[in-house]
Amino acid sequence: MFKKQNAMENLFKIFSLIPGIGKKSALKVLYYILSLEKEKVLEITDAIINANRSIKKCKFCRNYTENDICKICSNEKRDKTIICIVENPNDIRSFEKINSFFGRYYVLHGLISPTKGIGPKELDLKDLFLKIKNNDIIKEVILATNPTVEGETTARYIAKFLKPLKISISRLAYGISVGSEIQYTDKMTILKAIENRNRL
Amino acid sequence: MFKKQNAMENLFKIFSLIPGIGKKSALKVLYYILSLEKEKVLEITDAIINANRSIKKCKFCRNYTENDICKICSNEKRDKTIICIVENPNDIRSFEKINSFFGRYYVLHGLISPTKGIGPKELDLKDLFLKIKNNDIIKEVILATNPTVEGETTARYIAKFLKPLKISISRLAYGISVGSEIQYTDKMTILKAIENRNRL
Repeated sequence: MFKKQNAMENLFKIFSLIPGIGKKSALKVLYYILSLEKEKVLEITDAIINANRSIKKCKFCRNYTENDICKICSNEKRDKTIICIVENPNDIRSFEKINSFFGRYYVLHGLISPTKGIGPKELDLKDLFLKIKNNDIIKEVILATNPTVEGETTARYIAKFLKPLKISISRLAYGISVGSEIQYTDKMTILKAIENRNRL
Repeated sequence: MFKKQNAMENLFKIFSLIPGIGKKSALKVLYYILSLEKEKVLEITDAIINANRSIKKCKFCRNYTENDICKICSNEKRDKTIICIVENPNDIRSFEKINSFFGRYYVLHGLISPTKGIGPKELDLKDLFLKIKNNDIIKEVILATNPTVEGETTARYIAKFLKPLKISISRLAYGISVGSEIQYTDKMTILKAIENRNRL
């Protein structure tokens, strides 16, 4: 499948392509793989194939799950009137950690990005709009995409389409991070913190 | 092989065990794997198995190589009189990057660590001692293990054994990193920088 000569370089290239994994981490994983016994390697590759094969996207929220409907969506105690729209499943983990949001989620699995060739079609935003339109229980949508250009564009695009539905649409607040220092905070964040200041 | 129920958790645990890879990176890799098409996953697992299978340790320096002898050891232009002893193959990359060391290396693949149950036997230090002892060309050994307790212990252990051979033994210099600020430098480093100060 690959030339024997390039087995190491080939694997390094593959690891380097993983989003959010830098060259240093890719190297660490590479050397870890090289140091392993053959049996351990097969255990890892089996686990990779098995996880990829057995995981589906939840029919409601599109979060990864091993069932048709994920644990959160099938939890009757969750508030079905409010939906938090996030970029990826990792974001759900962050929200669940604070243990304060008890609504449901919707995973975009990406953001609108003209430079990457990702538009509303590629994100399948129709699925989102139809789900919200056909669900009378939903009263509020929180747009919880990251405060980046792509996150903003996506949030504004979704907000525009949801407006006619007369449900409450909100966006996560921008501001200085709790525990951080203003002197080390970037200009844009300070600007947003001033714009969004709360009267006391 | 694994219960379908736990395929995701299982893979996450496996990724978390990779040395130097934190939980956040493990999650990124996990979600990346889950997002892939089946064909792409098989390409990755093939590359992993292939790299692990085709890589050996160089007969001289024990660095990973796809041949019996690695590129550095088989390079006739390298200085055979000097050997730089490092913990792992990643360290060789760092030394090669500075493009100033033209000797050869020896990879320990670990450090002496009583708490991890790694002693001179587990590191196969006998191999190192025999190689140096039976090689009259070697004139100097640089002990280039990290400035940690384990790195120090290992360097001192090797130094003790090499002393009778009457070859020059040196250790990497400790001190303030170039470009860093003293106010952000830890106490031990400052102490070492004072101890190892150079008279002008």
